[in-house]
Amino acid sequence: MPNRNLLSMHSIENYKTVFEQYLSQGHFTQEPKGLYEPVNYILRVGGKRLRPLLALMGYHVFADDFRQALPVAMAVELFHNFSLIHDDIMDEAPLRRGIPTVHSHFGLNSGILSGDVMLIYAQQYLLDAGDAPLSARLLKSFNRCAIQVCEGQQWDVDFERMDAVTIPQYLRMIEYKTAVLLACSLEMGAMTAGASDADLHHLYEFGRKLGIAFQLQDDLLDSFGNAEKFGKKVGGDIVRNKKTFLILKALELANPADKADLLHLMNTPTNNEQTKIQEVTTLLRQLNVPDLAKEERNLYHRQAIAHLDQVAVPDARKLTLYELAEFLLDRDL
Amino acid sequence: MPNRNLLSMHSIENYKTVFEQYLSQGHFTQEPKGLYEPVNYILRVGGKRLRPLLALMGYHVFADDFRQALPVAMAVELFHNFSLIHDDIMDEAPLRRGIPTVHSHFGLNSGILSGDVMLIYAQQYLLDAGDAPLSARLLKSFNRCAIQVCEGQQWDVDFERMDAVTIPQYLRMIEYKTAVLLACSLEMGAMTAGASDADLHHLYEFGRKLGIAFQLQDDLLDSFGNAEKFGKKVGGDIVRNKKTFLILKALELANPADKADLLHLMNTPTNNEQTKIQEVTTLLRQLNVPDLAKEERNLYHRQAIAHLDQVAVPDARKLTLYELAEFLLDRDL
Repeated sequence: MPNRNLLSMHSIENYKTVFEQYLSQGHFTQEPKGLYEPVNYILRVGGKRLRPLLALMGYHVFADDFRQALPVAMAVELFHNFSLIHDDIMDEAPLRRGIPTVHSHFGLNSGILSGDVMLIYAQQYLLDAGDAPLSARLLKSFNRCAIQVCEGQQWDVDFERMDAVTIPQYLRMIEYKTAVLLACSLEMGAMTAGASDADLHHLYEFGRKLGIAFQLQDDLLDSFGNAEKFGKKVGGDIVRNKKTFLILKALELANPADKADLLHLMNTPTNNEQTKIQEVTTLLRQLNVPDLAKEERNLYHRQAIAHLDQVAVPDARKLTLYELAEFLLDRDL
Repeated sequence: MPNRNLLSMHSIENYKTVFEQYLSQGHFTQEPKGLYEPVNYILRVGGKRLRPLLALMGYHVFADDFRQALPVAMAVELFHNFSLIHDDIMDEAPLRRGIPTVHSHFGLNSGILSGDVMLIYAQQYLLDAGDAPLSARLLKSFNRCAIQVCEGQQWDVDFERMDAVTIPQYLRMIEYKTAVLLACSLEMGAMTAGASDADLHHLYEFGRKLGIAFQLQDDLLDSFGNAEKFGKKVGGDIVRNKKTFLILKALELANPADKADLLHLMNTPTNNEQTKIQEVTTLLRQLNVPDLAKEERNLYHRQAIAHLDQVAVPDARKLTLYELAEFLLDRDL
């Protein structure tokens, strides 16, 4: 770990500003409007822009002119938003980030078709990101990741109907659905800067482990977070009976009576959500599940940092990534 | 045009057999089953396999070992079936080729997600189809085509709600929605065989013009075909008030009274489909629309053949493509 007092070369905000400027240059102004308006709609909604930032930072670890990674950054942002649009249809979600989802606003057909075209454009941006050998390497990494994201989404859907989901199955699901795209964003940024295979491996693993830690953190925040700082309603996973790490750990540890109680709470429709949330969180606390989840999260976080440590560049070049890792896991519990 | 008595080097059926064998080798056997079963389901349904055949034939115009184009053939078949799955959702179609569509059989979510993964695999097959420079060229051609297919689908949707659609707009829609994928299949096959840029251009244009002719033929068959030989119910476009070339031409040519009649027929719900079909086809015949549509079809067909003539290889190498062009437009009217 580097000296925390070193100044990072670029703050996280700086990368974001550069990406937002690039995005605002008008990429999807062509006809037919019905196809491209939803693309601009979801891209304008914003968000953390975590994946494009990772692409730019992955480049910047190895070379200075990180704007070279903007097409890669665009590709991962397009892919991420494609998957949000299609996932929101599958989840029948009316809102995202406080505004209507694409399919609620433009209709189901627009959601499907505009998502499709974003997936194709993601590939096209990667094809334009460098010469043929680089593009081929980027696309190989990207396709593997994109397939895993689909597989992760399918597992997530499957788990809703399955009685017994194991913790390794759950961890693989969140790895595929969330973590690999973070890893791939870093890797493709670094690839564009000409990083070595060994460095690419460690940066990918840093992203993958960090992504899993990040999702475990999200599970914790959803049930035990400070609603105000978390930014969304606490207890949503519990109300929707989602089989998160917390629930799966509780089912693993509980004695037969507690297990029966928990399953009863999950399988019984209720009009009183607050009572259900309270009863489930009380049970989880009794079983020490929040602390065990924090331990698991910290384990992945430490593994992530160990991989970042092994990326063979001066610490100063990695400082923003250390900071980002801290920032992502430092949200209020 | 070559001497029709020359024997083609490979019959159309031979290409199909080779592709079906390749397809049956088990490409999507992995987990999660819920994601890949729909992929295998739609690939097994079969159909003409027109696009993969064009890829193999495009290769075979320039080089002998056309099996080298099997990954390209697979890519275009995957892409075509991806677009069928998503289009069937948008059209709320319960059946395709006489069996339940993917979303009717497996549900909406499976239709969306399995379609997505097929689009990604299409790209991956192209990435594996050759070395990096070839892959990059294939993907550039493919992405342009894939984007146009999405745009064509959007226009098709838009046209349903538009009062005035022009014939040039309609022709561009069918070009994008149908013809460019036929052109791209031929082009990518030929690219894999190392064809020159001039030959690629003429082969692409042959496919594009043929595709437009093919769709005009389809419009004709839908309203004036022999139901038994056409293989689907005649008059479907008329019942669904689809703005085909026939209708647009009729609206262009009709005097105010006939135009009012036709619009009235299209805008009035009816319980008697047969009467509506009869009244519309009678009006189309009075306006000489079937013959005008045949002329338009023949124009595109001739232009297609003129491009094929210019592909700079001995006629014997192009014979199957001449045969295919004849075969596609020789269905019963």
